[in-house]
Amino acid sequence: MRLEEAIQTIRPADPAAREAARKRILSLSMPPWALGRLLDLAVDLAGMTGDVRIPVARKRIVVMAGDHGITRQPGVAAQPSEVTVQVVRHFASGGGTVRALARNAGAEVVVADFGMLTPVPDLVAAGKVLDCRVAAGTRDFSTGPAMTREEARRALENGIALAERFAPDTDVFAPGEMGIGNTSPSTAVLAVLGRIADLESIVGPGAALPSDRLEGKRAAIARGLAVNAPDPGDPLDVLSKVGGFELGGIAGLCLGAAALRKPVLLDGFICGAGALLAAAFAPDCRDFFIMAHGSSEPGHAHMARLLGKTPLLDLGMHLGEGSGAAVAMPLLDAAHAVMTDIATFDEAHITPAGLPGLR
Amino acid sequence: MRLEEAIQTIRPADPAAREAARKRILSLSMPPWALGRLLDLAVDLAGMTGDVRIPVARKRIVVMAGDHGITRQPGVAAQPSEVTVQVVRHFASGGGTVRALARNAGAEVVVADFGMLTPVPDLVAAGKVLDCRVAAGTRDFSTGPAMTREEARRALENGIALAERFAPDTDVFAPGEMGIGNTSPSTAVLAVLGRIADLESIVGPGAALPSDRLEGKRAAIARGLAVNAPDPGDPLDVLSKVGGFELGGIAGLCLGAAALRKPVLLDGFICGAGALLAAAFAPDCRDFFIMAHGSSEPGHAHMARLLGKTPLLDLGMHLGEGSGAAVAMPLLDAAHAVMTDIATFDEAHITPAGLPGLR
Repeated sequence: MRLEEAIQTIRPADPAAREAARKRILSLSMPPWALGRLLDLAVDLAGMTGDVRIPVARKRIVVMAGDHGITRQPGVAAQPSEVTVQVVRHFASGGGTVRALARNAGAEVVVADFGMLTPVPDLVAAGKVLDCRVAAGTRDFSTGPAMTREEARRALENGIALAERFAPDTDVFAPGEMGIGNTSPSTAVLAVLGRIADLESIVGPGAALPSDRLEGKRAAIARGLAVNAPDPGDPLDVLSKVGGFELGGIAGLCLGAAALRKPVLLDGFICGAGALLAAAFAPDCRDFFIMAHGSSEPGHAHMARLLGKTPLLDLGMHLGEGSGAAVAMPLLDAAHAVMTDIATFDEAHITPAGLPGLR
Repeated sequence: MRLEEAIQTIRPADPAAREAARKRILSLSMPPWALGRLLDLAVDLAGMTGDVRIPVARKRIVVMAGDHGITRQPGVAAQPSEVTVQVVRHFASGGGTVRALARNAGAEVVVADFGMLTPVPDLVAAGKVLDCRVAAGTRDFSTGPAMTREEARRALENGIALAERFAPDTDVFAPGEMGIGNTSPSTAVLAVLGRIADLESIVGPGAALPSDRLEGKRAAIARGLAVNAPDPGDPLDVLSKVGGFELGGIAGLCLGAAALRKPVLLDGFICGAGALLAAAFAPDCRDFFIMAHGSSEPGHAHMARLLGKTPLLDLGMHLGEGSGAAVAMPLLDAAHAVMTDIATFDEAHITPAGLPGLR
């Protein structure tokens, strides 16, 4: 799908399936809504999938990697860009936190290069990394646009293509990411799309930036916003001026999954920025988003508000990679168990007469 | 173990294992403490089990059932006591919410009769329900003691015996419960042990009690506290005067598990009351408690404070049975994956020089 086709294909969640799920839940042998937000999740998943049995078994984390020119500014990131490819090689060998947590959750992981400084042709040839490269890292957005408009479109459409490619054997998509420096473009995207002028309130440490360097990071992002003046009404402009290739990939995966009516389980701050971009292109795609957890990165609460979501977990996680989505996945399985493995009052031979308060 | 032996056996969590876990976590290839409270959980589990690899695979939910004389007071419970045995029969046949969520979490469930009004000899003979009966329901604590001091001890020691029986093939215990009316004794136990005079702030709807009946429930509990005047310094007195057989069983399971150095994953309000009783007998047993979730029952937040715990989940659940523990169990598996399946920087071939901010 081209970008415009994905946008035009997206429709809201299915209200009939939501209502059918709500009715089924109220007939189950438990006090009304006694599992709280786990039941809200089940209703949401029914609306996304159009199926009260909420298929969620086949989960796929798509880790998208890219590098960022803004890391050339001193003090923006705690690690040099070379670490991006080191970590991606570790992922490709089966290592990494997201891999361990995905194994634990029974999820597949695929890794895609959206534009690292250093390509990995050996891993691409071996089928361990997918080639979705747009360019060798973005340009430094503190001095000019991060990428061209055409590059931004390519990142988005490469993300959409991943959704299309894997949809036939995926019930739930979870974008993940790796890219030293990518909290800076994510913060810039949040500032523009959320119309947040007070940058200080949303600039955070990302991957362990010491607190005495936060002001330098804020200043670099502020320069980028001033130099580029991205148009909040034009998400392609926002992505190209202050975004990143993997942010475009995440947004594209969100759009593609929503067009194909697949739930998208969102990890933390970077995935939230990608989701904000997707929602700016097609507001209805938010119906397909589940926020896995509340990141401790300060801007993330704004993302939850802007996307209209309450995170499932609140554990102070801030690792990225897709790790928070992996930790939250068993909650989707629990919601599935509720919809498929709990009897109604009648089926349970618990007589309605015995439960005057429950019907 | 007799009660006194369990109490004397309990020792605090192992500080050396906690420190070893903390060091291992800081050597892992991720920014410091980037998985937040999931890592705190791993450290806690290491302290409980004395093993940085935190064995948690074999999980067992022990559902303890009992009936409550206070349900004879009008308006205390939304359901009649007959529902207790109906639901226990449903559990015994493999049904029920806790069964479905336990299957989803890979946990075993055992069901024990601690004193239902109606015994289930057929299910006991078939090995589907364990006979831990103390008596056929408690007496109405709004007019006098719920049970004798000897009965209270028997409930506790039957709970301890379950911990001993299952410890050889159990890594994590989770008490569960079924007993129409059991939020009332749980509220009374909380009021006494927490020295909470404002009953209104901790009386909640339990299993869907209509709000216009809450005042009647509060008044019945208040009468029970006035008539019995339980001694907060004597937990056996508290249990016998305003408790319940399954509350004693939960407290006993908590004490036995702590004595055997097994983690105890606590479901909601009823399990919290049992845990408060256990902590009143042996404060160090709190080191072995994990609070699975924050119940929407209003007194539960007080229990978390009194036990010094932050719930893992906050999903507005209020079903009981052990269901909330089952939903939280995959987080323990995720913590295990962190401790066993993530490489250190050295193992990952991510050079420390490449990660100046991380070491």
